Amino acid sequence: MNSIRRIAVNTGGGDAPGLNAVIRAIVLTAEQRGWEVYGVRDSYDGLFEEDGVQRLDRSSVRGITHLGGTILGTTNRGNPMRWPVEAEDGSVTYRDRTQEVVDAFAGLDIDAVIAIGGDGSLGIAHALAQKGLNVVGVPKTIDNDLAATQLTFGFTTAVETATDAIGKLHSTAESHERVMVVELMGRNAGWISLFAGVAGTADVILIPEIPYDIESVCAKVQDRYENGPEFAIVVVSEGAHPIDGEPVYQDTRAGQKRLGGVSRVLAEEIASRTGRETREMVLGHLQRGGGPNAYDRLLALRFGAAAVRMVAEGRFGTMVALDPPRVLAVPLEEAVAHIKTVPLDSDVVETARALGICLGD
Amino acid sequence: MNSIRRIAVNTGGGDAPGLNAVIRAIVLTAEQRGWEVYGVRDSYDGLFEEDGVQRLDRSSVRGITHLGGTILGTTNRGNPMRWPVEAEDGSVTYRDRTQEVVDAFAGLDIDAVIAIGGDGSLGIAHALAQKGLNVVGVPKTIDNDLAATQLTFGFTTAVETATDAIGKLHSTAESHERVMVVELMGRNAGWISLFAGVAGTADVILIPEIPYDIESVCAKVQDRYENGPEFAIVVVSEGAHPIDGEPVYQDTRAGQKRLGGVSRVLAEEIASRTGRETREMVLGHLQRGGGPNAYDRLLALRFGAAAVRMVAEGRFGTMVALDPPRVLAVPLEEAVAHIKTVPLDSDVVETARALGICLGD
Amino acid sequence: MNSIRRIAVNTGGGDAPGLNAVIRAIVLTAEQRGWEVYGVRDSYDGLFEEDGVQRLDRSSVRGITHLGGTILGTTNRGNPMRWPVEAEDGSVTYRDRTQEVVDAFAGLDIDAVIAIGGDGSLGIAHALAQKGLNVVGVPKTIDNDLAATQLTFGFTTAVETATDAIGKLHSTAESHERVMVVELMGRNAGWISLFAGVAGTADVILIPEIPYDIESVCAKVQDRYENGPEFAIVVVSEGAHPIDGEPVYQDTRAGQKRLGGVSRVLAEEIASRTGRETREMVLGHLQRGGGPNAYDRLLALRFGAAAVRMVAEGRFGTMVALDPPRVLAVPLEEAVAHIKTVPLDSDVVETARALGICLGD
Amino acid sequence: MNSIRRIAVNTGGGDAPGLNAVIRAIVLTAEQRGWEVYGVRDSYDGLFEEDGVQRLDRSSVRGITHLGGTILGTTNRGNPMRWPVEAEDGSVTYRDRTQEVVDAFAGLDIDAVIAIGGDGSLGIAHALAQKGLNVVGVPKTIDNDLAATQLTFGFTTAVETATDAIGKLHSTAESHERVMVVELMGRNAGWISLFAGVAGTADVILIPEIPYDIESVCAKVQDRYENGPEFAIVVVSEGAHPIDGEPVYQDTRAGQKRLGGVSRVLAEEIASRTGRETREMVLGHLQRGGGPNAYDRLLALRFGAAAVRMVAEGRFGTMVALDPPRVLAVPLEEAVAHIKTVPLDSDVVETARALGICLGD
Repeated sequence: MNSIRRIAVNTGGGDAPGLNAVIRAIVLTAEQRGWEVYGVRDSYDGLFEEDGVQRLDRSSVRGITHLGGTILGTTNRGNPMRWPVEAEDGSVTYRDRTQEVVDAFAGLDIDAVIAIGGDGSLGIAHALAQKGLNVVGVPKTIDNDLAATQLTFGFTTAVETATDAIGKLHSTAESHERVMVVELMGRNAGWISLFAGVAGTADVILIPEIPYDIESVCAKVQDRYENGPEFAIVVVSEGAHPIDGEPVYQDTRAGQKRLGGVSRVLAEEIASRTGRETREMVLGHLQRGGGPNAYDRLLALRFGAAAVRMVAEGRFGTMVALDPPRVLAVPLEEAVAHIKTVPLDSDVVETARALGICLGD
Repeated sequence: MNSIRRIAVNTGGGDAPGLNAVIRAIVLTAEQRGWEVYGVRDSYDGLFEEDGVQRLDRSSVRGITHLGGTILGTTNRGNPMRWPVEAEDGSVTYRDRTQEVVDAFAGLDIDAVIAIGGDGSLGIAHALAQKGLNVVGVPKTIDNDLAATQLTFGFTTAVETATDAIGKLHSTAESHERVMVVELMGRNAGWISLFAGVAGTADVILIPEIPYDIESVCAKVQDRYENGPEFAIVVVSEGAHPIDGEPVYQDTRAGQKRLGGVSRVLAEEIASRTGRETREMVLGHLQRGGGPNAYDRLLALRFGAAAVRMVAEGRFGTMVALDPPRVLAVPLEEAVAHIKTVPLDSDVVETARALGICLGD
Repeated sequence: MNSIRRIAVNTGGGDAPGLNAVIRAIVLTAEQRGWEVYGVRDSYDGLFEEDGVQRLDRSSVRGITHLGGTILGTTNRGNPMRWPVEAEDGSVTYRDRTQEVVDAFAGLDIDAVIAIGGDGSLGIAHALAQKGLNVVGVPKTIDNDLAATQLTFGFTTAVETATDAIGKLHSTAESHERVMVVELMGRNAGWISLFAGVAGTADVILIPEIPYDIESVCAKVQDRYENGPEFAIVVVSEGAHPIDGEPVYQDTRAGQKRLGGVSRVLAEEIASRTGRETREMVLGHLQRGGGPNAYDRLLALRFGAAAVRMVAEGRFGTMVALDPPRVLAVPLEEAVAHIKTVPLDSDVVETARALGICLGD
Repeated sequence: MNSIRRIAVNTGGGDAPGLNAVIRAIVLTAEQRGWEVYGVRDSYDGLFEEDGVQRLDRSSVRGITHLGGTILGTTNRGNPMRWPVEAEDGSVTYRDRTQEVVDAFAGLDIDAVIAIGGDGSLGIAHALAQKGLNVVGVPKTIDNDLAATQLTFGFTTAVETATDAIGKLHSTAESHERVMVVELMGRNAGWISLFAGVAGTADVILIPEIPYDIESVCAKVQDRYENGPEFAIVVVSEGAHPIDGEPVYQDTRAGQKRLGGVSRVLAEEIASRTGRETREMVLGHLQRGGGPNAYDRLLALRFGAAAVRMVAEGRFGTMVALDPPRVLAVPLEEAVAHIKTVPLDSDVVETARALGICLGD
């Protein structure tokens, strides 16, 4: 058993319902062990800013379990592995600042760090761990595409929001005899679209894992109008793409529009091929906003408590993970090695097909 | 007292949460009086189609109070005042078919018709009334822009959906330090945007009634980043427009894209003028989908029951309306004479300003 | 125009969804006028306790619009008109402390007080006004039984919660072929039961305004089993009573059980008279808990902003009130003169009957 | 591969959100294989009643995925293993009717039966399987206490409802400085209480697996009033009991009151020992009512589709089960061998303790 006295916690990447619950669990369970907890604002940026590291105690985390967002400020900040440096001529170069991060934590007498984040943030955590920092990771991804954990907090809330939206679109699609194309999150993995599409009884679900044939999609739509109720709901992941094409979403970092690409293209193609009135809807940021549902609150609290347990047990360089019904620790290295896509032999895929849902192939 | 034995009911225009509750109330209360009720499918189209008029009884309307959509089929159909007739050469002309409608009802021995619809449908009802049909109208508009009734069913549900969406966008806007522009329904009247924007604590609310000055909007956004939390929520009605410009939404009937015009323009202007990362979101069809909330269920049931009462009392050519706390009847002529916009001296407008919300002026 | 610089706000009586939104609106709108706002904790108790009066500013009220409860602490405290004084022998006498309250506010240089509360609290406010205090009241009652305002914040949220519960009980009542008796709030007035009962499609609704005949109730239940689906939902207000009996709820202050009396008695009578399996459910405190819906948020914000406006206009001794679509001021005296019960000629009562709902008579 | 042409489906035991989704998935996926599906009403009773077996097709199951209850009628009926027979003198004896059930299915040319039910119903299914019926079971228990499956549909919906209720009680408990005792479902297993209690941030959680010491409970309550916010939330399973006592719930079958026993006893003890105002609330039937959330819809659809797959593969005498992320089949015998209680070394129990929640020991 090691002798921890002070730990730090930070959050990185996009927000996810449950972040505050993780933080609360970390603070309460660490206090029970007699530790002090410090929150680093704005990912690692707070380390280099005035008032960027704040003491968190019981009162700091009161009443936040069910609130969305994060009390640790913006989650979308600088990457210490690739920190932008602007030269006098305006050109930008990047330098590795990870050693400064390790030194800054040392300077604050921080014995261990709990890093809550997605793919990118956990990669940074892994790099920091290799530089000697005592790190435990907590996985965070709305898309549920992190390897080594079956689920992450925020995902079932996003699925609930998306399913509710699909449900609402049913009544209006039916009343107006329209095709509704709904674009959901998921650049690399179709978890949200598959789960919400099946739960919400979509007619077509297109995910990145199964390149789609526009003719199959339109055939399904036509079949609905000819034999069933005269409307159709098409759910599509941001990263879905035709069998002979690339994903159409564009890169945020290049300053371009991020959302709506694939749904617009699809809606236009369906309208022109089938002649049916078609509308698109981009659910977008609604999916990651708001408070966590009960399942995600519980999972977030379990992750936070488990992270503190791993720190107490000295299991650094790991990430907490759900292997139902257990929460356990896996090596960070393994967690960031690859992303988790929907396996095509999943019974959920099989269920979708058996229900007559077109998966685009 | 007249001697009603058979009545008909139809729905016209876009869907609204509560339509089924109105139909249920009409059927149950008419049955209590010993009347038969017939539903006309697809606005008035059912009159001219096989199986287009169906008997509705207690079992037809069981368990539908809380369901969205309408059991009377699509609501977005032909206008008997302007019925499209395609010539052999493909050209389309329009003819007035209202007398045929009146005759069709007479042929079915229908003693009175309850027409549920918005501006357009009530105008048709008024024309039919002038041709001698016994009509009572029930107002239906998500936008709440019908004169002569303070509220219509579906409106508070739409406001709830919009407020919930604004709430969800807060956490993600804050986490990412973004400006979020949310486009809500309302081409002519800003009721949804004003109510949801105040309830959802938006920073800027732009409605058709108050042409906006983009500089005021950007000044408010900048002030948020400089003095307050570094994010901003801008709510904008579909029909909002700058002081020196026209609304940018485009006409559906011309086959063009309907939604998203104003939010895209605004988001681009705000981003370029303030330099802040800005995203837009079009809530669109979600606002009119789904089941009605408790308030709208009750209002819809009251409207349905009141419409039957008006029929029993022979008060034809009227529309039921809410003059809180009463439901009463107003002349159809008055109801369709003009649309109801937000009065600029409303205490809600005053409340918005007092809370520091920028209304664009 | 008077010259206000410092105002105080307090909350009294049971909680209601929207209290925090009222407080937020008061603080933000008063700050816009350059005033300082002070919150008095625990009704008026804070005036006589250390740290019982606290400065409220923009940051105190951030992010609370949608939260239940009240940031001003417990709402269920001492009545300054009847303050308990314990003698050495343990006996309790009461004294009038209203002058001390007036003096305490004067000692704090408070120019005006906004008192948010129900029947009792507004009575106290009225007494304080008569002693010379500058008071404006904001009505607060879940039961919606305050005269002089058509609606109060929290009421539609309570109706939504109750309607949702009635909906949930339908599926289980039907599956088990049971009679479910649901007790809702309302000792003197049946607003919640009537509104939620109709919106939730109950079969029987019993309210204090209409003493019930148990035989009518049982006849309706039997009719359901014989002719309709074999289950029944009976909604009953806490204060409903038989034509020949008294309400069975008992007084909290005497330390006795408060809820569940009438539903238990009814369930037993229905079971023994009809032989049908019957269960009761007391919704109780759930009805006043949680955050306000969009409608109540807006109403609460309007009330808060209006109260500040009345203070600015020197309209003391009044209460803000909703006379749709306006919020205006009415004399406190009028507001507390009597409670507002459901008028038997209300169209909602008529709607309930027309839908075939048994009202117990 | 066997040659199935006609299958039957029935539901037994109390209702659970998701039953209709299971039925829909069975019908749609069986139709895709070209099978006919028959629904048996009222558990097995329909076999012996006129119109008790009905053909189910695509149109029978349209739009029911999100609805609570079951389209197959009451779920709480006769047990063919112990069928009551009333003698002329009014005395009741029981006989085994399972062979008649097997024969009845044979007489209807039913090739296989999918039985959806809990502990009791699956025991019957097992007995029928042993008599030669081709049966596949689908687990159904709100309490989540069925062995051999990690989760059942309806459970996370019940946890959500309970968590939401606990959340609502927080604001009123705090406003009134009360202890609120909330009784949740769970006679033998504390899953709902533990999950909802942790997610809803209760202060005390009492479950059947951990007999409670009333002194520990009261010490925790006192600590809240002395050091923390002056209120407390106590969550208690129906079947929780003191270390030296029995569960206080009473048997429904004996015609006695079922719910509220333990919460009433606890509330009285806490009030008398701590002197704090205490109220109890029995959430009861609300927990199993209403429509399923997205997670439960998906799980129910997967279970239904998997059951059809098991029938196709001839894997009779099994039950579908969730072993995340897979749905697979387990022997019915194993599934009904014992109930699944909360393991005391579960990380959820550990999380609860680490968060400072009193578990009664």
